[in-house]
Amino acid sequence: MDGLAPVRVLRIGHRPGRDERTTTHVGLTARALGADGVVLAGSAADRAETIASVTDRFGGPFAVETTDDPLAYIADADEAVVHLTMYGLPIQDRLPQLRDRHRSDGDSSDGGQSLLVVVGASKVPFEVYERADWNLAVTNQPHSEIAALAVFLDRLYRGEELDREWVDADRAVVPRATGKRVEDR
Amino acid sequence: MDGLAPVRVLRIGHRPGRDERTTTHVGLTARALGADGVVLAGSAADRAETIASVTDRFGGPFAVETTDDPLAYIADADEAVVHLTMYGLPIQDRLPQLRDRHRSDGDSSDGGQSLLVVVGASKVPFEVYERADWNLAVTNQPHSEIAALAVFLDRLYRGEELDREWVDADRAVVPRATGKRVEDR
Repeated sequence: MDGLAPVRVLRIGHRPGRDERTTTHVGLTARALGADGVVLAGSAADRAETIASVTDRFGGPFAVETTDDPLAYIADADEAVVHLTMYGLPIQDRLPQLRDRHRSDGDSSDGGQSLLVVVGASKVPFEVYERADWNLAVTNQPHSEIAALAVFLDRLYRGEELDREWVDADRAVVPRATGKRVEDR
Repeated sequence: MDGLAPVRVLRIGHRPGRDERTTTHVGLTARALGADGVVLAGSAADRAETIASVTDRFGGPFAVETTDDPLAYIADADEAVVHLTMYGLPIQDRLPQLRDRHRSDGDSSDGGQSLLVVVGASKVPFEVYERADWNLAVTNQPHSEIAALAVFLDRLYRGEELDREWVDADRAVVPRATGKRVEDR
């Protein structure tokens, strides 16, 4: 989000066919809730196009990338790696420290620590747990990587992401108490 | 959640085949983030079983119901109906008032207003917008009903849901900085 160190979301373990919709949800959630970009496996290239088309219509900036080797991508990341997992440490205990680092003046040109947030679909290899700088749990219950990502981003950004502006949007929803209204821009 | 008026989540528009995984995510997110139960369409009965089996293993209380007519179920609901939709009013503006009603001493035996939270899969019929007491948007951007539900519940419960206790769990995850640990109970 504007004025903060970059946050990108990497989706690991995408299984073509089985995970198409959930991978789309991961990407669109990352975009809507303030992340700067998403990285998908090459096998999810169709999903990348869907997410990019939403950005074309509803605005950005939001970067969509694919990689043929998500594990190598994580291993080589310059950012601090945050892995969201039900086996990790409670987000409510650890996020204040992470958020401070993300926002503090540091060695990043953006004034804080950049983040690569990893969310799995199928079982995540153990090397991701070992590589991650933070293994964080949004509850230690089985639920949804989409939900975990949403809570993480909403808390990381302290809700400020809900008021962000969108650039180069062709259309925008006008909030209504009842019904639907979409305007061309 | 314990000590608060009941909150149930109703999933509308489930398309068999296409929405199996996202409907599961809706149900598990509702459970993990403090709702008291989920209501699914009869066509999602397999998903109801999956969610109930998680409750059997990881604890509750959490109710799973199905209905053959979700629209009639919403029309007849005794609770205040909250519809999460990208076309609605911004959650950051409206949730404080809704949360106060949910928590305040009122006519409910639980001390506040009970809620039925409706989340769609496919296009939601206009009658749901009209029936809803609150049409709320977690951003006016297209993303994910799972993400919207997660942010809504985390804010409704003020994060207290992350520290809730689970009853009758056969197993529980022990939080770890690295790796996985699950204990039988």
